[in-house]
Amino acid sequence: MVNIAVLGLGTVGSGVVELLKLNEDAISKRLGDEVCVKKVLVKNLEKKRSELVEGKVTDNFNEIVEDEDIMIVVELMGGEEPALTYIKQALISGKHVVTANKEIISKHGKELFNLAEEHDVNLLFEASVAGGIPIIRPMKNCLAANKIEKIMGILNGTTNYILTQMTDENKSFDVALDEAKIEGYAESDPTDDIKGFDAARKIAILSSIAFNTRITSDKVYTEGIDKLDLLDIEYAKELGYLIKLVAMAKKHEDKVEVSVVPILLNKEHPLCGVNGPFNAIVLEGNAVGRVMFYGQGAGKMPTASAVVADIMAAVRSDNGNKLYCTCYNELDVMDPGLSRTQFYIRLRVKDRPGVLSKISGAMAENEISLSKVFQKHTMNGTAEIVMVTYEVPFKNLQEALEEIQAYKQIEEIASVIRVEEES
Amino acid sequence: MVNIAVLGLGTVGSGVVELLKLNEDAISKRLGDEVCVKKVLVKNLEKKRSELVEGKVTDNFNEIVEDEDIMIVVELMGGEEPALTYIKQALISGKHVVTANKEIISKHGKELFNLAEEHDVNLLFEASVAGGIPIIRPMKNCLAANKIEKIMGILNGTTNYILTQMTDENKSFDVALDEAKIEGYAESDPTDDIKGFDAARKIAILSSIAFNTRITSDKVYTEGIDKLDLLDIEYAKELGYLIKLVAMAKKHEDKVEVSVVPILLNKEHPLCGVNGPFNAIVLEGNAVGRVMFYGQGAGKMPTASAVVADIMAAVRSDNGNKLYCTCYNELDVMDPGLSRTQFYIRLRVKDRPGVLSKISGAMAENEISLSKVFQKHTMNGTAEIVMVTYEVPFKNLQEALEEIQAYKQIEEIASVIRVEEES
Repeated sequence: MVNIAVLGLGTVGSGVVELLKLNEDAISKRLGDEVCVKKVLVKNLEKKRSELVEGKVTDNFNEIVEDEDIMIVVELMGGEEPALTYIKQALISGKHVVTANKEIISKHGKELFNLAEEHDVNLLFEASVAGGIPIIRPMKNCLAANKIEKIMGILNGTTNYILTQMTDENKSFDVALDEAKIEGYAESDPTDDIKGFDAARKIAILSSIAFNTRITSDKVYTEGIDKLDLLDIEYAKELGYLIKLVAMAKKHEDKVEVSVVPILLNKEHPLCGVNGPFNAIVLEGNAVGRVMFYGQGAGKMPTASAVVADIMAAVRSDNGNKLYCTCYNELDVMDPGLSRTQFYIRLRVKDRPGVLSKISGAMAENEISLSKVFQKHTMNGTAEIVMVTYEVPFKNLQEALEEIQAYKQIEEIASVIRVEEES
Repeated sequence: MVNIAVLGLGTVGSGVVELLKLNEDAISKRLGDEVCVKKVLVKNLEKKRSELVEGKVTDNFNEIVEDEDIMIVVELMGGEEPALTYIKQALISGKHVVTANKEIISKHGKELFNLAEEHDVNLLFEASVAGGIPIIRPMKNCLAANKIEKIMGILNGTTNYILTQMTDENKSFDVALDEAKIEGYAESDPTDDIKGFDAARKIAILSSIAFNTRITSDKVYTEGIDKLDLLDIEYAKELGYLIKLVAMAKKHEDKVEVSVVPILLNKEHPLCGVNGPFNAIVLEGNAVGRVMFYGQGAGKMPTASAVVADIMAAVRSDNGNKLYCTCYNELDVMDPGLSRTQFYIRLRVKDRPGVLSKISGAMAENEISLSKVFQKHTMNGTAEIVMVTYEVPFKNLQEALEEIQAYKQIEEIASVIRVEEES
């Protein structure tokens, strides 16, 4: 009998308790042991709860950490404190910890892995990235013979749902966001999702594993989707692209490039088939080539699936080898200004002769070649110019756009979005 | 220092030796130990070989099995004998075995896992299914909290390459097969691939793991693609489907349905985006929902990626928990006649009044409803009738077709292909 404690009984916490019951037979046969939820930490003892946790709830973490029968602590409270303190105390008490907390892993991973190693216990976090999709363990084990060269992922279901609605149903960002809230795909405060912060934490975790170097989420160059205009989605389609919020990490000589940005993706790119609330991760390894993992990146039972698998893994390696921090490199994160890519730019200009010549002049001065330019005439003497550049360092483009911004014929630099030509 | 022996120096064997050299630094840092190829078993000692194996080749397996310094035997000879005997001897000698041999695992898995358990060593076989795509370990570990309900996979690159050529380039089966040979995607004797036998071995392995019951490849209902006509691919497209060779396994109450058959797949199904030599597996679990794994299912370095990951896993769990046979169920394989699905049928008939009425009469008598019927007039008094049925047990259809076959107006039952409506 393996006794565990669950911290937090929100959506995922309840899912874990329910899944352990639902698949009890398969789990205990596969594990050769029974998993029993002995204690559940909640804030409010008075609240009515499922009979599955009857007699097990407590609001006192000491009851858990001091209980020698409890072998695994499953942290599903979310947020930084008190979760971080509880995780540390559990590790120090020699208990394995399973968590879905991407904030804590992406910020405090190093300290926690060291603590786990010191106390010879597991710290497992498969559910912190991409919900039910197996990705952490496959990277650490199944792809361990590869040097990973590039990761591209759709790691946030909320923004992918919104972008799919904008792309397929021509809904504006605001309308799509409101619908996502109604459908339960967006939180009442969606800032972390739509600004890209959630995806930044996840790509920080994935790139740390892929490149064996600690990357924290504050080092991830991040742009959200809240300024995306339907017009850009429409023009992108005309040009053969779809716009997705892509978390990307790429290994250069001795640097790592890591970002979360909207990208115009070639329609044939495998991530273009990832719609609605689904997530996917494309990895490129120097032996395996390209592999993709696809599934539900969030939700009660998919996330519980990953958490319970981690619980089983913790039991299995209780008396065997554990996998600790694999960050044996110390690579710097590349200055985002040096990142080379193609760009899509949409400008609103006064419809006068010579405007295009001035713009392309400023581009040329900054060594930017244009692969496509088209002009749309709009009303009241305003025209729209849409350009796609060849690959260029971001800083060159920034300098060119600064000059262009200063021209009196320029009304607005409406959009600057990265382009991925490769399919 | 971990010493290993490699049996067989064909494509994958050379790939493994090269990959261990290519990523030497990353592999030893991640593993905390160096992997050294100490011996390589070859048939012909005289052949000139890469300097990577200089001084290491032998044609005598005893030199390997009796060498106490060798911890892991990597079997990459293929075929049944002598590979099977060597694997057994290695396990009995207390050496871990890593193999890519789907034939042996699908036929002799049970015996070999028992032997491994008895001698407390690992028997790992990630590379036996879908080359570099992580699938065996994710199923056994990451998805262990799920009851898997269904597997659908494109598990054979040769047939998928041929079907992609037929679909996208309107090439006939024979032309596409010849090209596949030239491109190196098909062997000179492609029987195992085009008849579906290769995919049958792989789905036998996957379904054994998924449903925790031993399924051998001779129990897999198997149809190849060698009788597919371009016309069927064209008509399928008109109806909104693509034809793929799909390995499928589905859990029923106390039976397992398992097959390799061409299927008309809804164009929106994720497997429809899997083209050319690529492989993919879609799993449906009762917690995780649908997950997909995609990548290169064959080839030198992708397969070596899986083999070397298994070597690393064998080292890591040398003194810890090993995962043995998980077949704790004894489920029967379902009679293929009872398998319920929709069917696409193409008939060539004499163009006379009343033919369609007789055909639909025979269908109705066998409780088969038709969802779509269309008739194409061809030359010389022959017409073509294409039908799609609603879901029906295969045996009802077989009985109806037997009756229909007997009508003198019927020239040929040209095609009977399963249909998957779900996207």
